[in-house]
Amino acid sequence: MKLLILKPKKEFIKELNREISLIKMKKFYVDDLTRDFSTQYGVISKKDLKKKSGSVVKSNIGKEFIVLDADFIDNYKRIKRTSQIMTLKDIGYIAAYAGVNKTSKVVDAGTGCGANSIYFAHLCKEVVSYDINPDNVKVAKENIKNLGLKNIKVKEKSIFKGIDEKDVDLVVLDLPTPHNAISAAEKALRVGGYLVCYSPQITQTIDFVNAIKNNPKFIPEKTVELMERSWKIDGLIARPRRGGIGHTGFLSFARRV
Amino acid sequence: MKLLILKPKKEFIKELNREISLIKMKKFYVDDLTRDFSTQYGVISKKDLKKKSGSVVKSNIGKEFIVLDADFIDNYKRIKRTSQIMTLKDIGYIAAYAGVNKTSKVVDAGTGCGANSIYFAHLCKEVVSYDINPDNVKVAKENIKNLGLKNIKVKEKSIFKGIDEKDVDLVVLDLPTPHNAISAAEKALRVGGYLVCYSPQITQTIDFVNAIKNNPKFIPEKTVELMERSWKIDGLIARPRRGGIGHTGFLSFARRV
Amino acid sequence: MKLLILKPKKEFIKELNREISLIKMKKFYVDDLTRDFSTQYGVISKKDLKKKSGSVVKSNIGKEFIVLDADFIDNYKRIKRTSQIMTLKDIGYIAAYAGVNKTSKVVDAGTGCGANSIYFAHLCKEVVSYDINPDNVKVAKENIKNLGLKNIKVKEKSIFKGIDEKDVDLVVLDLPTPHNAISAAEKALRVGGYLVCYSPQITQTIDFVNAIKNNPKFIPEKTVELMERSWKIDGLIARPRRGGIGHTGFLSFARRV
Amino acid sequence: MKLLILKPKKEFIKELNREISLIKMKKFYVDDLTRDFSTQYGVISKKDLKKKSGSVVKSNIGKEFIVLDADFIDNYKRIKRTSQIMTLKDIGYIAAYAGVNKTSKVVDAGTGCGANSIYFAHLCKEVVSYDINPDNVKVAKENIKNLGLKNIKVKEKSIFKGIDEKDVDLVVLDLPTPHNAISAAEKALRVGGYLVCYSPQITQTIDFVNAIKNNPKFIPEKTVELMERSWKIDGLIARPRRGGIGHTGFLSFARRV
Repeated sequence: MKLLILKPKKEFIKELNREISLIKMKKFYVDDLTRDFSTQYGVISKKDLKKKSGSVVKSNIGKEFIVLDADFIDNYKRIKRTSQIMTLKDIGYIAAYAGVNKTSKVVDAGTGCGANSIYFAHLCKEVVSYDINPDNVKVAKENIKNLGLKNIKVKEKSIFKGIDEKDVDLVVLDLPTPHNAISAAEKALRVGGYLVCYSPQITQTIDFVNAIKNNPKFIPEKTVELMERSWKIDGLIARPRRGGIGHTGFLSFARRV
Repeated sequence: MKLLILKPKKEFIKELNREISLIKMKKFYVDDLTRDFSTQYGVISKKDLKKKSGSVVKSNIGKEFIVLDADFIDNYKRIKRTSQIMTLKDIGYIAAYAGVNKTSKVVDAGTGCGANSIYFAHLCKEVVSYDINPDNVKVAKENIKNLGLKNIKVKEKSIFKGIDEKDVDLVVLDLPTPHNAISAAEKALRVGGYLVCYSPQITQTIDFVNAIKNNPKFIPEKTVELMERSWKIDGLIARPRRGGIGHTGFLSFARRV
Repeated sequence: MKLLILKPKKEFIKELNREISLIKMKKFYVDDLTRDFSTQYGVISKKDLKKKSGSVVKSNIGKEFIVLDADFIDNYKRIKRTSQIMTLKDIGYIAAYAGVNKTSKVVDAGTGCGANSIYFAHLCKEVVSYDINPDNVKVAKENIKNLGLKNIKVKEKSIFKGIDEKDVDLVVLDLPTPHNAISAAEKALRVGGYLVCYSPQITQTIDFVNAIKNNPKFIPEKTVELMERSWKIDGLIARPRRGGIGHTGFLSFARRV
Repeated sequence: MKLLILKPKKEFIKELNREISLIKMKKFYVDDLTRDFSTQYGVISKKDLKKKSGSVVKSNIGKEFIVLDADFIDNYKRIKRTSQIMTLKDIGYIAAYAGVNKTSKVVDAGTGCGANSIYFAHLCKEVVSYDINPDNVKVAKENIKNLGLKNIKVKEKSIFKGIDEKDVDLVVLDLPTPHNAISAAEKALRVGGYLVCYSPQITQTIDFVNAIKNNPKFIPEKTVELMERSWKIDGLIARPRRGGIGHTGFLSFARRV
C-alpha cells in the first residue's frame, strides 16, 4: 500500500494581513498500485505511484502530492473490520503496562477482525488468538495474510473452554463476558504475566474485577480508562477540539501470581 | 530485583453479613537479595527471597508473601530519577502511534534519567539519546547498566546542534524548547518516520506545532493529551477514584515526508 | 411555547425473552399554538395543544403524546442564536461560584444573542449587557422581548470604553479580547464582586489571567474547564456515550478587592 | 464572617531578569470579630477587622491584608460538615438545568449538613429537606440558623415514606438508595418539574436510571458527570494542574410528565 499526501498550500494575503490556507493537507490510501489513482484533485499515474517514498508527484491537473510507502501502522489502520477495533492509545497502554516485546508470547480473545493479534504480532514473538465465530476467523486470517505476518495462530475455539498454550506473558480479553475467561487465563499465564480485560461497559468491568478479586492466583492491579483529548492549534488559535473525547473502553489489569 | 506481594486476606463476618478485608495486598520491591528483607509484616529471610517466582513464603511472624521475579517494567519503574518520567500511557501511545518494533531505530532528547531510552531499547533495535547535562548522562548510564541494556548510546550533546544518526524511525522530544530540535529531527528521520513532542506546557506545545506547520518536510498529525482515570471497584462499589486525573503532558505527532 | 413528548412504548417479546423499545421518546417544540402541529407520528390538533400541562393527547394516527407547558429553560434553549451560547453547566457554575441571586446586579459582554443576559435576568435583580454589534443587539432585544423579561438593559457600546453601572456583583465576559475589559470591570464591581472570563481559547485565557495578575485590585481565583461526560444507561448497558466530551470554554474567576 | 486576604507581593529581580513572587496571596476566614486574629504573618487587631470591606490593614509586623466582608458563598463554604457536600459545579448545574429561581419550591434529601438546602434557599422561594438521621438534622438546623436563612424547613423523616409538599419544582436526591425515593418524588413534583439524583457510585446511578425508565410519569433526560479541570497559568507557564480532576458524582436528570 502507498499513501498520497496532498501538499498543503498557504499564501500571505496582503489585504487580510495574514496567511490563508489555500489547500488543506489531505491523505489518500492507495491499495491498488497497478492502476492510476483518481482524487478530486486530479489523477496520479500508476508510474508516479511507484516512485520512491517521499517523492513529490503531480496530478494531471497540476496539484502536488507526496508519495509515501505505507508503514505497519498505516496498513494496520486499513485492515478489514468486522466491528470496532481497539484504539492505539488503549493497545499501546496494554503493551507498555505488560512490558511485552520481541521475546513475548501473547494470547488474545475474541479475535474479531484480528486487529489485536496483528498489533501484538508486530511487537512480540508469537500470538495465539481465539474466536468462536467462523466469520471472524476468516476475516482475521485474510487480514493477517495481507500484512504478511507469520507469527499468529488463529483458533476457532472458545477461550472459555481453555487455552492450549502455557507460559504466556499476556492474555488480552476483548469479549462480552470476560470473567468467564479468567480460569483459562490462570492456567495459561506464567507467574508474573498479565491478564488484561478491555470492555466498553462498566457493568462487565465490574463483573470481571469482582471475579478477579475472588481468585487468589491474581493480583488485581487497576481499572482505568484513557480519555484522549485532541487540540486544535493554529497560530493564535489553541483550544481542545469541539468533537471531544469519545469513550472507547475500560481497561482492567491483573497480574498472575 | 524481586517483588514481595503481601497476600491479601478476607474473612466473612457473620455479624456484618459481609466479607471484610483483614489484610490488604501490598507490594514491596527488594533490590538487595543478599540480605533479609524487613517489612511491618515481619522479616523475610534471604533464603526465601531466592525461591522460584510464585512461591509463597512466610515472614518470621507468619504472614504470607508471594515472591515474584521482577519483569522489565518492574525494574523500569524503579530506575533512579532526576525528574519526572513519562508515564506508561504516554510512552505506550508514542510507541503504538509510530508503530516501532524490534526493527526500529529511535532517537530521544533530553535523556534525563534515561527512562525513555530504556523503554524504547526494550522494544526496538537501537536507541541514541542526547542530553547536555552531564549529571543526567551519568545517572542515565547507571540506570542503563543496571538494566543490562546494550542497545542504547547516550551522548552528552545538544540535540539542537544536530543528530548524528540517519534513517531514524522515531525522534522523541521531552525538553523545554522542542521547536529548536525540529531542524535536527528533519535531517535524521527517514521519510515516513515520526517526530513526537511531549510537553507538560501548552505554551511550548503551541510553539512546536506552529513551527512544524511552517516546515514543509513535516505533516502535522495531531496534538492530544491522554487523561487516565482510575476506578475503584469492589463489590457494589464502583466509582472513579477521588484522587482524580493528573495532568502529564501534551503529545504532538508529526510525520516526516 | 409548548412541548410535545411522544410517549415511549416498550413491549416484552417472549421469543427474545426481553423488553424491546417499540417507540422511542421524542421531544417536539411547538411555537405556534394557533395551528395544528404535524410530526412524523401524526398531527396534533390545535385544540389538543392547548390542554393542561401533563395531558395525554392522541395524534390523528393514534400515537400518544404528552402536552407540556414550556418552562423558562425550555424557552431559553430555543432563543434565536447568532453564535454559540454558553452551556448550562458553564453558566450554572458561574452563577454558583459568584453566589448571585435575586438581589444581584450583573453586567455581561458581549451580548451576542442575549443568552447570558437572559439566564442571569431569570436569576437576578437586574442585568446590563454591552455589545458593539447592532445586529447582536437587535436579536438579543427580540429574544428578551419574547421571553417577557423586564430587568435587562442592552447597550450598543463597547465594554472596553467603560461600564456605566456601579456596585455590580458580577461581570461576565464572553468576547475575543477579555483582558481589554478588566479596567472597566474594576471600576464597576463592588468590593468582593466577581469578574468571570469565558473563553474557548487557551491563548486568550492566558492573556486574561496574566493581566489580572498584574492588577492589584483583583485576586485571581482560578481557571478551570468543565468537561461534561454523558452516560448511556439501559438495563445491563452502562457506559460513557461514544459522542464524547465536547470542549466549550475555559472559565477564569477573579475577585475584586 | 470576614475574610482577610494577605496581599501578594512581587518584585523584579535584576539579576534574574524576571519578577519573583515574594509573598503569595493567602486567604483567612475570621469567624470571631470580637478578638484579634493571629496569622503567621502577624496579628490583625479586632478594630481593623471591623473596617469597611476592601480596606487595607496592617498586621503588627507590618504585612498588608485586605479586609473583606463574607459573601453568601464564603459562608456557605464554611458551614459545619457531617460528610462531603456537593460541589458548586454540580449544584450550579442542577440549578441551571432545572431553571429554578426566586419563584421555585425545592425538596431535597438527605439533608446531611444542610448544604444543598442552604444553596437552594439562597436561590429559591422555599426549601423542604428530609433526613432520618437526627444528628444531621441538628447540624443542618445550626448551619441554617448561622446563615440567617428563613425559608428552609428540615424534617426528620424518611423521604421514602412520602413527601408532604405538592407542586414542587425540583427534587434533589443525595442519598444511598435514590431509586427508593422515586415514587415519593412522583407525587410531589408538578408536571414539568425535575427529579435529580446525585450519586458518587455508578451502581446506584444504574439502579436509579433503570427504575426511572420503568416509571411512565418520568422522562429520563440524561446522566452525566462534570469533570472540573484546573489550570495553572503564570507568565509563560500554562498547563493543567498536576492535582488533577477529582470525581464527585454522577448526575441523573428526569422530568415529571
